[in-house]
Amino acid sequence: MKTELQTVDTSRRPVRGAQAPPLNRATNSQLTSVAPIALPPTAIVYCEGNFAKIDGKTANGLVRHSQAYRVLSVIDSDHGGSNSGLVLDGVMNHIPIFESLDAAATQETATPDTFIYGMAPSTGRLSPADRGVVLDAIARGMNIVSGLHEYLSDDPEIARAASKRQVAIRDIRKPKPSKDMRLFDGSVARVDALRIAVLGTDCAIGKRTTATVLARALNAKGIKTVLVGTGQTGLMQGAKYGVAMDAVPPQFCCGELEGAIVAASEAEHPDVILIEGQGALSHPAFCTSAFILRGSQPDAVILQHAPKRAHRCDFPNMPMPTPASEIALIEAFADTKVIGVTLNHEGMSKAEITDTVAGQAHELGLPVTDALSRPVAHLLAMVVAAYPGLQQGTPVAAI
Amino acid sequence: MKTELQTVDTSRRPVRGAQAPPLNRATNSQLTSVAPIALPPTAIVYCEGNFAKIDGKTANGLVRHSQAYRVLSVIDSDHGGSNSGLVLDGVMNHIPIFESLDAAATQETATPDTFIYGMAPSTGRLSPADRGVVLDAIARGMNIVSGLHEYLSDDPEIARAASKRQVAIRDIRKPKPSKDMRLFDGSVARVDALRIAVLGTDCAIGKRTTATVLARALNAKGIKTVLVGTGQTGLMQGAKYGVAMDAVPPQFCCGELEGAIVAASEAEHPDVILIEGQGALSHPAFCTSAFILRGSQPDAVILQHAPKRAHRCDFPNMPMPTPASEIALIEAFADTKVIGVTLNHEGMSKAEITDTVAGQAHELGLPVTDALSRPVAHLLAMVVAAYPGLQQGTPVAAI
Repeated sequence: MKTELQTVDTSRRPVRGAQAPPLNRATNSQLTSVAPIALPPTAIVYCEGNFAKIDGKTANGLVRHSQAYRVLSVIDSDHGGSNSGLVLDGVMNHIPIFESLDAAATQETATPDTFIYGMAPSTGRLSPADRGVVLDAIARGMNIVSGLHEYLSDDPEIARAASKRQVAIRDIRKPKPSKDMRLFDGSVARVDALRIAVLGTDCAIGKRTTATVLARALNAKGIKTVLVGTGQTGLMQGAKYGVAMDAVPPQFCCGELEGAIVAASEAEHPDVILIEGQGALSHPAFCTSAFILRGSQPDAVILQHAPKRAHRCDFPNMPMPTPASEIALIEAFADTKVIGVTLNHEGMSKAEITDTVAGQAHELGLPVTDALSRPVAHLLAMVVAAYPGLQQGTPVAAI
Repeated sequence: MKTELQTVDTSRRPVRGAQAPPLNRATNSQLTSVAPIALPPTAIVYCEGNFAKIDGKTANGLVRHSQAYRVLSVIDSDHGGSNSGLVLDGVMNHIPIFESLDAAATQETATPDTFIYGMAPSTGRLSPADRGVVLDAIARGMNIVSGLHEYLSDDPEIARAASKRQVAIRDIRKPKPSKDMRLFDGSVARVDALRIAVLGTDCAIGKRTTATVLARALNAKGIKTVLVGTGQTGLMQGAKYGVAMDAVPPQFCCGELEGAIVAASEAEHPDVILIEGQGALSHPAFCTSAFILRGSQPDAVILQHAPKRAHRCDFPNMPMPTPASEIALIEAFADTKVIGVTLNHEGMSKAEITDTVAGQAHELGLPVTDALSRPVAHLLAMVVAAYPGLQQGTPVAAI
């Protein structure tokens, strides 16, 4: 029997190549106290017809949190002239929405560095109507970032236009060549950090948002935490460690995720590693969570659920699971335990959120909260209740 | 919410493109009673150092069964001069083993049509030593077939040589462009045929072999059965329906398998569809079976197990699961039932096989047999016991 398993490369290999974050304008050598501070590139996020909706989740995520790009504005003609924070969360921010690329670009004194395709349709494909906008952005000299399954860098018309205009195309989902991918080898079991996966009962339900809020809260309490991204939005937001699982061949899914976790552990020595979930373990179409559970071997799971969602996102004929059935499935599938449930309050009044938090906690016998509408201390308490030994110390910056 | 789900294409799309079986030399129009019978292309199967071993499973499978190629010989210098059937199963066949490509080629009056890379290392990559042999085969004018994850058609040196010599490279695992892949849409639930998945407790444990034997036996009894392949060996052997799951992005895994099953159902109207499993649902590294259970929604599962295997193939630090634990996991993960267990008798004496069949049947309360060493009637009885309503009729040819 031939065994050619690789040893783990301790450099930050999971984010090299197409999935690597963009380089800042200043190089590291310029980062002295007298040099100008390096700023991330500026970006306009395209989300026509979908901002604040489920298929606009990439744009929604970037408006809430972006380390890798300075988001200047959003394009969605349904909300032209509105404020993106107000539309999305009812709280003003500094990111306006424009009705077109032209309207957005003319607001800026310089051409923005980057055009981000901010939608995640379940087909993963560029619509013919959006193609013209991408070509317009290229013609204006903007670099292109896309999380579509259809790689824009492989599209002859788009690639030709980008080459001619000398702009870069970053296809977040384009995997590395298979020769650079790693197989699972069990080394994740030797990672010291507590590993918590944030899974959910559906796609596009707030797993990444809850994980981001929790990572910030833990770091603020001095519990050093690294979030390992597993989807294109997290990688676009600037996750330092992660892999777009949905585009990696199944042969390497567990191994690539394990590699990202081991790399984060060795480079950062965190107390906690949070792992972003994908889809739902029970989902008939998207059960990448199976690979996430196998590849990360989490000590614990937090389950994100939307009580008012009637059916799986994009699948009207597939009913939602209950949190109880999803918890039973997760705990049967992997040697882990669900330590709490977090709610997505879509379609719920304030009173309904309060009632549901109390009702679900009673029914499930687990802590229940909502990362966005409840105090972050409740989310923190969920983790500390399960792991009271976690040492609180000096606040650290989120990674 | 934007929904762009595709309708099911009823043509045989799952096997188009790189994964399509080779064309026969004669076209369909020549297939009259007076025209010469169209023969599949001839092939030499390369399996240096691995024939009859686990990583040689592609060659082992092709020696036992091949509809798509006429296998002339096998290359493995460890067994030069032996008979492949004798080495593999203790029964002579017509396929000799040679010590080198040169020795194999000089036995033939004409250059064989095809060189098949017959190994499936878990890394999925071509070793430097094997590269020279592939280039030699190209220089001789042979087409190349490979199931490696590393696509030989993307390798500059190999692609250049093939182009110069005007031979074709067929990368079995190379997926279609994502724009041609389909998402799961639940249409598998409307398939009339009984669906039985043959899963296992490990990789390379005999799932495909058991499924092939069972398909033949059911067809011989007039229960029309189609085997849907999910791995490179089955597709190389000539499976008319199937997809190399391990190379499809997870986003499309369930949908592509569903598409293959729906296509088989609509074109063949079988009584039974058998679905080849991959890896093991409990496997820490390879749990593609999760997608197979979700995408095929099988009525029943047959579980293949090797009682004497000490650890997962290629992973000395990962113990094997018990059949009981794997059955519990499968039935917790999916709405299906395990109707029987089939054994891989590697490392077992005849007496041990007999004892284990009886012992496991008693312990599990399920029918247990061995597709290779026990009468095929036992395997057939396993299915008929679970589904007595299956109508036996006139024997049909296996598909």
